[in-house]
Amino acid sequence: MLQAEVISTGTEILLGYIVNTDAQYLSRELARLGIEVTLHTVVGDDREIMKSALRDALKRVDLVFTTGGLGPTSDDITKEVVAEVLGRPIVLDEESLKAMEAFFAAQGKGLPEAVVRQAYFPAGARVLPNPVGTAPGAIIQVDGKAIVILPGPPRELRAMFTTSVVPYLEALPGRGPVLYVRVYKLTSIPEYAVHDALRDLAATTNPTLGFLARPGEVHVRVTARAGTAEEARKLVDLTGAEIYRRLGEYVFATDDEKIEATVGTLLQKCGLTLSVAESCTAGLLGGRITNVPGSSAYFLGGVIAYSNELKERILGVPRETLDRCGAVSEETAVAMVRGVCALTGADIGLAVTGVAGPGGGTSEKPVGLVYIALAAEQHLDCRRFVLPGHRGAVREGTVNTALNMLKRYLENLSAG
Amino acid sequence: MLQAEVISTGTEILLGYIVNTDAQYLSRELARLGIEVTLHTVVGDDREIMKSALRDALKRVDLVFTTGGLGPTSDDITKEVVAEVLGRPIVLDEESLKAMEAFFAAQGKGLPEAVVRQAYFPAGARVLPNPVGTAPGAIIQVDGKAIVILPGPPRELRAMFTTSVVPYLEALPGRGPVLYVRVYKLTSIPEYAVHDALRDLAATTNPTLGFLARPGEVHVRVTARAGTAEEARKLVDLTGAEIYRRLGEYVFATDDEKIEATVGTLLQKCGLTLSVAESCTAGLLGGRITNVPGSSAYFLGGVIAYSNELKERILGVPRETLDRCGAVSEETAVAMVRGVCALTGADIGLAVTGVAGPGGGTSEKPVGLVYIALAAEQHLDCRRFVLPGHRGAVREGTVNTALNMLKRYLENLSAG
Repeated sequence: MLQAEVISTGTEILLGYIVNTDAQYLSRELARLGIEVTLHTVVGDDREIMKSALRDALKRVDLVFTTGGLGPTSDDITKEVVAEVLGRPIVLDEESLKAMEAFFAAQGKGLPEAVVRQAYFPAGARVLPNPVGTAPGAIIQVDGKAIVILPGPPRELRAMFTTSVVPYLEALPGRGPVLYVRVYKLTSIPEYAVHDALRDLAATTNPTLGFLARPGEVHVRVTARAGTAEEARKLVDLTGAEIYRRLGEYVFATDDEKIEATVGTLLQKCGLTLSVAESCTAGLLGGRITNVPGSSAYFLGGVIAYSNELKERILGVPRETLDRCGAVSEETAVAMVRGVCALTGADIGLAVTGVAGPGGGTSEKPVGLVYIALAAEQHLDCRRFVLPGHRGAVREGTVNTALNMLKRYLENLSAG
Repeated sequence: MLQAEVISTGTEILLGYIVNTDAQYLSRELARLGIEVTLHTVVGDDREIMKSALRDALKRVDLVFTTGGLGPTSDDITKEVVAEVLGRPIVLDEESLKAMEAFFAAQGKGLPEAVVRQAYFPAGARVLPNPVGTAPGAIIQVDGKAIVILPGPPRELRAMFTTSVVPYLEALPGRGPVLYVRVYKLTSIPEYAVHDALRDLAATTNPTLGFLARPGEVHVRVTARAGTAEEARKLVDLTGAEIYRRLGEYVFATDDEKIEATVGTLLQKCGLTLSVAESCTAGLLGGRITNVPGSSAYFLGGVIAYSNELKERILGVPRETLDRCGAVSEETAVAMVRGVCALTGADIGLAVTGVAGPGGGTSEKPVGLVYIALAAEQHLDCRRFVLPGHRGAVREGTVNTALNMLKRYLENLSAG
């Protein structure tokens, strides 16, 4: 199996100002391509340390990726270091120079002297155009190995990797089993309960399972290896189906899916409008729903009823209900959702009330207790949850859980 | 100046699942102590690669920090690798064993066989207790240099570093100038304008300035070096005063300060209550205000008036105002804030309306145009902003800017 190392130049990383997201990105993408990353190195702008890191890496692995050090200043020495280590001269790439001149001309500017540096490369380099910046990258073959030189800014690195490097790597022989990864995101269930439910699946070696707790979410990462991405994907699908069978009600998204976008698409498909009444989340639910551009097509707004007085005054929750059942109760959630539907005229209402903590919990109504009510024409559903974690986790968990209730309702509606 | 390298063992980092936050933490803290970090390495659980990384590091620098690989499984080989490289035996530390037995006994359990591994160390190690877990760390002196062995879980690493490693490092001779860092967070101004205003300060070498754009925020990092933290701090203070003089109105927080907490403290000090009316932010402002535990003492709630109809129906914005001036206008913002104060009875109202984008912008009312109105007894202020960036940045910027307006109002009020 092909092996790779990543050498990053980054004074800001060595000072602890930023984390090495370039190395993370490359590692994840290379694993997906069946290339094993065995080492990361972060160096500053010290020429000798960089040379020795590069020499050592070339001894050990087939592919060396460098990130950063391609800028126009004298600190940017990656290409010079590569040339010195390989004993090759640095030469001008005419095409890169023309591209840079065009880039600046388009802004009505001449090419700054310092930028000319970026058009020079170790002899024999295949130059990689930069789709979103001025500094090109390069691939340099050497004794059956290769050095891939990439820019540091994540946006530029990713664009260049996708357009130029992936096709190059896909054509390489000797890649190992490829990796396929899918992340299942669960809410309204504590991490230990997810562990318990999937204990047997977690004991297998292909796919493997990884667990990660985030505020209001538990992520289950399913990773399979196989000869092709398609085969690996099938293995992930099988395990995924089993996760759905056992814990499907808690799964609110996979990978980069945004549940607010999923819900928005369903609302538009059904031609329905939505409003919210929020107590413990105090606006987070409305804020999340409107992350989606164009959400004004279906989201009307609603009420942040943080105090009991506003629950009564704006939403019409009876004072008697608040006194008898409390603000965190099924009765209050139902009165809130009815109130917001009447007030806004929306087709669907969502109301949430809960104990976010850290204070305010009792043995009867602990921190994390949340009631979520969903009302629509001829439909009323109110559920009780005890969400794990601290204040932030309870509030984010409430938003995820409310959106998940709505998603399920709309899925049934549009399927029915 | 003392130099250090950080060697992390982390298969999950090499697979790109997580970023190397341990190395970031150590780098930042070591810089503050006057120790220069010159290299980071991330290795997997390959014994030979780890050995060679450790040998190379010991040749180059005074201090080598390892993170991770102290767990109870056979993959956890850091201490064995250190012992092999130094040619020392691995020996049992009786005290650590007793501490582990006590740790498990407190939970009514016997010591698991696998955990006993964690009580063994290279001979001559000074064992560092783990305040929040079972795996102890160690400091091993060797030929005037030292290897500092730390656990991988960030919580454990940080606790051990603070309690045991900092006092050790502070007693070392040969540390260089220490670093003092403060981050000024600005909003409602684009990054290039911050650059322009601070160009001369950015050209100095002590302190240095660093710039970072985040959605709705621009961070200016001021870093000074001096013989003592107090001197370095004074240098930062001087530059900070100049930043305030030029851009003070945009500074909404420094370092880890949360503006919503600052505002909450001021509201309580003044004995005032708050409510919000949100259009483009649709709840994000209320959500942010209530991040603060105990915010129910001063925050009543408010209205998410995303649609024009709700602006009219709940907040009483005249239809004529909406038709004539538009939803994004000073007139609408003022009507919204008056409406929410009347509806909720709060002492202070904040209203926001704007074009968050990506759609909906015109040449007259571009994406980023936002009106923010603040009303209080005998006080009405409405301001117009054009906030930079995309949808998320405009919305977060609106929240920061609204809270900053409120903070300034309350500061003036409480100053008398």
